[in-house]
Parts: sequence; C-alpha cells; structure tokens
Amino acid sequence: MRKYHLLAPGPTPVPPQVLEAMARPLVHHRTKDFEALFAEVRAGLSWLHQDKGDVIILAASGTGGMEAAVANLLSPGDGALVVEGGKFGERWTEICKAYGMAADVLRVEPGYSLRLDELESRLDPARHKAVFVQASETSTGAKHDVRALGGLLKRKAPGTLLVVDAITALGVYDLRPAEWGIDAVVGGSQKALMLPPGLATIWLSERAWAAAAKSRSPRYYFDLRIERKVQAKNTTAWTPAISLIVGLKVALGMMREEGLDAIFKRHARLAAGAQAAAGALGLDIFPQDLRSESVTAVRVPEGVNGKAIPDRMQDAYGVTIAGGQGELAGKIFRIGHLGYVDESDVLTAVGALENVLTDLGRRVERGAGVAAAQKMLLG
Amino acid sequence: MRKYHLLAPGPTPVPPQVLEAMARPLVHHRTKDFEALFAEVRAGLSWLHQDKGDVIILAASGTGGMEAAVANLLSPGDGALVVEGGKFGERWTEICKAYGMAADVLRVEPGYSLRLDELESRLDPARHKAVFVQASETSTGAKHDVRALGGLLKRKAPGTLLVVDAITALGVYDLRPAEWGIDAVVGGSQKALMLPPGLATIWLSERAWAAAAKSRSPRYYFDLRIERKVQAKNTTAWTPAISLIVGLKVALGMMREEGLDAIFKRHARLAAGAQAAAGALGLDIFPQDLRSESVTAVRVPEGVNGKAIPDRMQDAYGVTIAGGQGELAGKIFRIGHLGYVDESDVLTAVGALENVLTDLGRRVERGAGVAAAQKMLLG
Repeated sequence: MRKYHLLAPGPTPVPPQVLEAMARPLVHHRTKDFEALFAEVRAGLSWLHQDKGDVIILAASGTGGMEAAVANLLSPGDGALVVEGGKFGERWTEICKAYGMAADVLRVEPGYSLRLDELESRLDPARHKAVFVQASETSTGAKHDVRALGGLLKRKAPGTLLVVDAITALGVYDLRPAEWGIDAVVGGSQKALMLPPGLATIWLSERAWAAAAKSRSPRYYFDLRIERKVQAKNTTAWTPAISLIVGLKVALGMMREEGLDAIFKRHARLAAGAQAAAGALGLDIFPQDLRSESVTAVRVPEGVNGKAIPDRMQDAYGVTIAGGQGELAGKIFRIGHLGYVDESDVLTAVGALENVLTDLGRRVERGAGVAAAQKMLLG
Repeated sequence: MRKYHLLAPGPTPVPPQVLEAMARPLVHHRTKDFEALFAEVRAGLSWLHQDKGDVIILAASGTGGMEAAVANLLSPGDGALVVEGGKFGERWTEICKAYGMAADVLRVEPGYSLRLDELESRLDPARHKAVFVQASETSTGAKHDVRALGGLLKRKAPGTLLVVDAITALGVYDLRPAEWGIDAVVGGSQKALMLPPGLATIWLSERAWAAAAKSRSPRYYFDLRIERKVQAKNTTAWTPAISLIVGLKVALGMMREEGLDAIFKRHARLAAGAQAAAGALGLDIFPQDLRSESVTAVRVPEGVNGKAIPDRMQDAYGVTIAGGQGELAGKIFRIGHLGYVDESDVLTAVGALENVLTDLGRRVERGAGVAAAQKMLLG
C-alpha cells in the first residue's frame, strides 16, 4: 500500500469532484448544453482575471498559450525584450526565435527577481514591441513584480506590450492585468486551476487585440482572432478539450466559493509554512528576492545528492515534488503548493523531506521542520 | 429522465473503463510510472498504424495535428495540391495559406470521392511538394482512396509527399501508411480512439521526417523534430495531456483485445446497417462513390426542415447526431458510428430517426429502418 501525494509545481492534485464531473459521459460540444457550460466557464475566467474582458481557452498545454501570445502579438522581425530568469524565460526566447522575432535577452540570475533599473537600462521603446516575462518563474520559485513592471512601461515605453506568463501565478496571488497595464496573461489548466494538463488560457488587453489584428505571423490553430469571434458565441473554432472544460466549470465554482482573497491568503500561508520548515531544517530558500507563493525552491545542502531527493521522496514516501531543471538539476528541489493543496499537504511534504534528508546522510532534527511549518500554517 | 446517446462523428462515446482510469488521481508526467505508461501507448499507436515507426502525440485537437503536418513538412512558398472535398479539405487549404504555402485546390464535389485521373491531370511533380487529402471526409461521409492515391504518386510524382487526415479513418478501416506510400497520417483522440478530445497523433514516413528536418516554417509547440527526440525517451517536450494519455492506454488495450480485423469488420457492419436503414426509409445516402465506415451522411428529404433533424433527435429523443456543415447545413445529416459504438447504438439512432422524420411530417413506415438495419447488423 502506497498513497500518492502530489506536491509538484504542476501538475497539481485534481479535486475528486472535478474528476467525478470529468468522468461523466461526454457531452457533444456543438450543443446548447455545452454552450451554457462554456458561457459559465468564460465568466469564471474573467472573474479570475479580475476583468470583464474575454479570456480565450485553447486545447493545448501552457507552452501553446505562450506561443499564441508571441505569434499573435508580434510579426517576424519585430524586436522584443525577454526577461530570462529561468527555464520558462528561456522558453519565451525560444518561441520568439522560432517565429523570427528579434529577441533581446535580459538575463536575470536564476533565483533573483527582475530589477526595474536593469530593465529600464535595456529597454528600447522604439525597438521593443513587447516585453516577455514570467509572473512566477516556476523553475526557480522566484517572482517578478509584474505590477511594478507594468507601471514602468506605462511611463517609459507606453507603446510596448507587456506579456506575462502567469501559469503558476494565476489563482495563486493577486494579478490585475487590466489595472496594472498588462497586455497578455497566459495560464495553464494543471496549476491553480486544479485540472489535468491540456488547456491553456490567454487574456489580452484591448491594445493587444489590436496588435493581434495586425500581426503577420503565420498561425492557425492558435489564431486568437478566430477564437475570439467564435468563443464570443460560446463555442470554439476547433474541437475543444471537452472534458477539461467540464472540469474547469467545477474548479472555477470551487474557487468562486472560496473567494479570491481567501485563495491568495491560503497560498501565502502554505508558502510561508514551507519556507519556515526549510529554515528550521537549516536549508536555504533558493529565491533571493521575491518568493512565489506557488512553489518553494530550496537549495540542496552541501554533501547531499540533490538528484536523489525527489526520487527518494517519491519511491520511499510516495510524495512527488520536483527537482531542479537544466543548470539547476541537482542544485535545488521544489515543493509545489498551489491549487488543491492544504495545510496538511504541506506537513506531509515537510515530514517526508525530513526523512529523506536523514536517509541521505544529512543530520536533521526530526520534527523541527514540521513544527515550524505547523506554526506558520496556523498563523 | 433522459438518457444521452452520443452518435456523432466525433466526439464519440468514451467507454466507462476509460472514464474510470481518467478519473483516478493524476500521475506526474516526469516519473517512471508515466514513462512506462507512455511507452505502452506509443507501442499501441505503432500497432494501430500497422508500422514500427514513431507516432507522435500532441496535446491539441485534430486541427493542431493537421497544422503540425503542414508546418513541419513544407516551407513558405512551397507548392502543394489540396484535395478539397468538404470542410476538412478546406481546412488543409486554410492552414497552408496561413503558413504561406502555394496551395492549388483540387475541388471535389461534396459527396464524391477523388478521381485519380483528375488528380493526375492537376498534379505537377515539380511544383507540388505534397498532396493533402482526407482518408475520410467527415463533413460529407465520403472516403478518398488513399491507397490508390499512394500508388499513383509513387509512379507519377515519387518526390511528392502524401499527407493524410485520417482523423475519422484511423481505427475504423484498414490503413497501412508505410505499405501504401503515405507520408503523414493525422489522428485525433475523440474518434475511434474512444477518448475525449484533446490529443492529436501524427505518424510520419522516414522521408517525411527528412522533410521535417529541412522545413523553414516557424513552429515551436508543434515542432515534431523536438517531440520525436523527446518522445523516444517516453516523455514529451511540453506538459502532456496526462489524463488523456492514461485513457489512451486503456482504449488501446481494448482495441488490441478486439483486434484490428474485428474492429474494421464491426465498423463496416455498423455502416452497412445505417445505410440499409436509410434506404428502407426512402432516404438517399449522400456520398456517391466510396462511403466512409465512420459516418453515414444522409440527404435531407424534400419538404423536411433539415436543420430541425439533429435538434429534434437530441431534444425529443436524447440522441446526438450531426447536421451538415457550411454549405451542407440543412441539406444532410450525419450519424456517427465509430469508436465505442455497437449494433444496439445504430438501432437506437435509426429508431429515433424514424420518430423525428414522422414528427417533421415525413411519411415513414415505422420500424422499416430498424428492421433493415437489424438484418445487416446480424449479417
């Protein structure tokens, strides 16, 4: 007997009532029933984006949403500034290059947050049609302050679009794209939306929609102009991922019942609990500036085989967390606490971590992490 | 109380054991468990394509798979010949245009199948790097003979790639891409694969893989070069639609147990039953040449409001079929009988159809269609 505890920064656990709804016989998508469902989901997504505007739903994982942002907002040869603070920042650059944009890279040391003065010194309002950034860089656990970035662009480069990968930010902490001067927000289903992977969401500002009308980049499946027209009629241009949309209705219902404030507070509390546990175990939190409430990235202590930590968490204790990616492999591990995750789940992860560190030869006071987390979680 | 009977040409009913597997707690995709699952699914897809080669799995609906074929095999400016025998043929043209290919359209009257002499007279081996076609044109119920087409290309244009949308053909009737000289086969999960929508599959011949290595078309999410490398290691480049892949394992297991021959025979029998019923009710089958075993398209009889047929089938009798699309709206209706569909389901559809035609003022001998279908279905 081995229970399975999913505490990764995505995919995240799917609530049983969502799984149950998705397990019902499939509804055809060209029916009034589906249209009513889709209308409710659209309204819920607007609510989540704290705006009245359209949120487009795509049958793709988050990377497809990122590609949709690039291909719809820029044309080949357009200049862009990419904030690259980790693996997902690099993904923006890769997509821009694949589509022939001239991407200037503002490299941010992994674990650090974007410094506005650095961005300002690199920003060329005439050249940069867009700035691409992560709200929460899942690979490092660091946040970039997209609100402040929006304010800066408004003052210094009012013609430059601000495109935000919010895949592990949306539904985790406060994000007000319309109010903060953000032009595109990309989300993914397998994060705080509490669904299996397979849906991407994208919100655009009105001026981003105007840019989408002008872009000369080739696109079809991800053509947001087509989707906007069709989704306004509560259907989709191509066959939608029906079962995920059925699940999304239930998940959004749960989120509306909890309320945005409570959701944000819960995630902040879980993050504080995980961070406190790491501190009590003598471990260093990897992000140095702003820490994302969705994932706690911890530096692997010296003398411990870092790659063995997630493996042993899973094999010996049934807890799935994530290791480091790319250059961070073996150097950090990441505990996800976004979506359908509560205080007990964080204690579960911390308890297993204490065991694993002990197993791997690190001297750890058993219970110290759990106790520190518990204090914070009750707070 | 209203039972829900899904007899559309996609989405199709999902077997309860597939729904049940998909309703289990989500497995993380970067784990050994998922890798083992993915290996099994890949082997099953190769079996379904009657070939040893790789079948790539994409988190997208079928249209995404079609776009992947276009963007990976051709470069901007390349010439292509598109067989346009209905809405999905038009989709090939639209995708080619979106990506800047020079698409010549060979228009086939809806309901008819491609004539090889016509294709031969339009084919320009020097200009056409690829021919795009549907194996089964879902919008009309007509088949194109891709085996014969493969033979023709081998003789007359050996350098031209044959790209086949097999979304409602794969797992319905015999299709041997490697043997028949086909270069790309696109599939979709919500058809004979008996899953909800959200997965596309694509098989490529070795020379198509060589073309993919050379294509200059922009692509990232659908970059098959990346996916081939990564999927060979039993994982995916971007987050996969995990729950659908879990379901696919179960669905492929069911298909392997039934066996390809039995699957093809079942679909042929169901199609014959539906066609016999239409004949017995004095209705004309829409396809004039080759009829697809996945969907029976029937011409709306004179004096009957064609758009009302699918609506009333659903609202009054709980049976979901499909109407005509585009220029065929109101002129035909389509009964899907692919995937998790058996003889009783066809009788269900035919019985409801008799009722609806009567309701709409058409004189119908009740029971005549059901009896004719039943005779065929037992044969």
